[in-house]
Amino acid sequence: MTPTSEPPAQKLTPKGLATRERIIKAAAELIYEHGAQNTNNEQIRAATGVSGSQLTRHFPTKESLVRAVLAWQADGILARHQIPELGELDSFAALHRWADSYIASQEALRGGCLFGSLAAEVVKAEPAHHGAVADGFERWQELFRRGLSTMRERGELRPEADPIALTHLLAAAFQGGMLLDQAAGESTPLRDALYGALAYIESFAAPR
Amino acid sequence: MTPTSEPPAQKLTPKGLATRERIIKAAAELIYEHGAQNTNNEQIRAATGVSGSQLTRHFPTKESLVRAVLAWQADGILARHQIPELGELDSFAALHRWADSYIASQEALRGGCLFGSLAAEVVKAEPAHHGAVADGFERWQELFRRGLSTMRERGELRPEADPIALTHLLAAAFQGGMLLDQAAGESTPLRDALYGALAYIESFAAPR
Repeated sequence: MTPTSEPPAQKLTPKGLATRERIIKAAAELIYEHGAQNTNNEQIRAATGVSGSQLTRHFPTKESLVRAVLAWQADGILARHQIPELGELDSFAALHRWADSYIASQEALRGGCLFGSLAAEVVKAEPAHHGAVADGFERWQELFRRGLSTMRERGELRPEADPIALTHLLAAAFQGGMLLDQAAGESTPLRDALYGALAYIESFAAPR
Repeated sequence: MTPTSEPPAQKLTPKGLATRERIIKAAAELIYEHGAQNTNNEQIRAATGVSGSQLTRHFPTKESLVRAVLAWQADGILARHQIPELGELDSFAALHRWADSYIASQEALRGGCLFGSLAAEVVKAEPAHHGAVADGFERWQELFRRGLSTMRERGELRPEADPIALTHLLAAAFQGGMLLDQAAGESTPLRDALYGALAYIESFAAPR
């Protein structure tokens, strides 16, 4: 991670924190819609009513803002995977509910994964973002690894099921499927990729 | 596809065609390394020795150049999948050779898929690129669909194996695995994703 010069969030007043949040949220929406490269300060100011000097005080550079958006999207994705309906992602039913929640949404077609589409856009262009990209993918995958590990410990998956390898397949199928959906303008690539990955994971189910 | 104002390649003299090719190749390398958003005309001129006015004559806008690079990378990927060692991608052995050629390469770590990483960067930022992105993914996936269809026709895959769905899984695992490798700086996500997808496809092998 590269050091940055924006003021640390924990030193802000409640009002300053609220402004910072408002900037990040508006930037995240604009970036999700148009890409980071097509989002500029004027659009963010118009969307938030924040002045140019306030914007610069919170985020002196575009890189610092994009990094904050990456972290914010990663937090949002994590929260979305930790809702009661999905439990600890530690059952075949929960994994299917997770997959279906994305397949049924129009998100893939609209702009792909909230975190992954931005990660893919900036990972190469800005080495300073690399840490935030790696961290977001890692925290997300950890949820699946933990769920699959629990299933193996409980004896629902056979001992030879490798939670790390199966998580890599599931995460790759998701990210690749989101990109292919977005490109094709239809939602079968993600569905086929996730159902295929889940069927493969289920092939490790222990006999009851 | 949005109409563009660059001269159609087929109307160029042999010398003009050679210059055009040189520009595209240099731009493709710079873009693969640094991203399209961080590649500018000065770098391309320095890399090719082509003058600013020549560059503008061939590619009046950055969009027209990026679109040409997308098409060029798509052609390159297709050629790479049609080498004799891979045959028609119509056997389990050929599919494994294909996967291993990417897993063994350092390409994922260096910059991801030559086509997919650029596609992911620009698909959202520039609606005019959407056609080239969709076209590239479609032509690439067609190779796998054809190979898997042949295997089913020959009775090597059971009738319920769906070449379209299995191709979506394989293509998504590849694109997602390439991105996760790049983010993590290590090559196990792609390997696990491709081996998992191939094992799932092999679960449809007809009994001999």
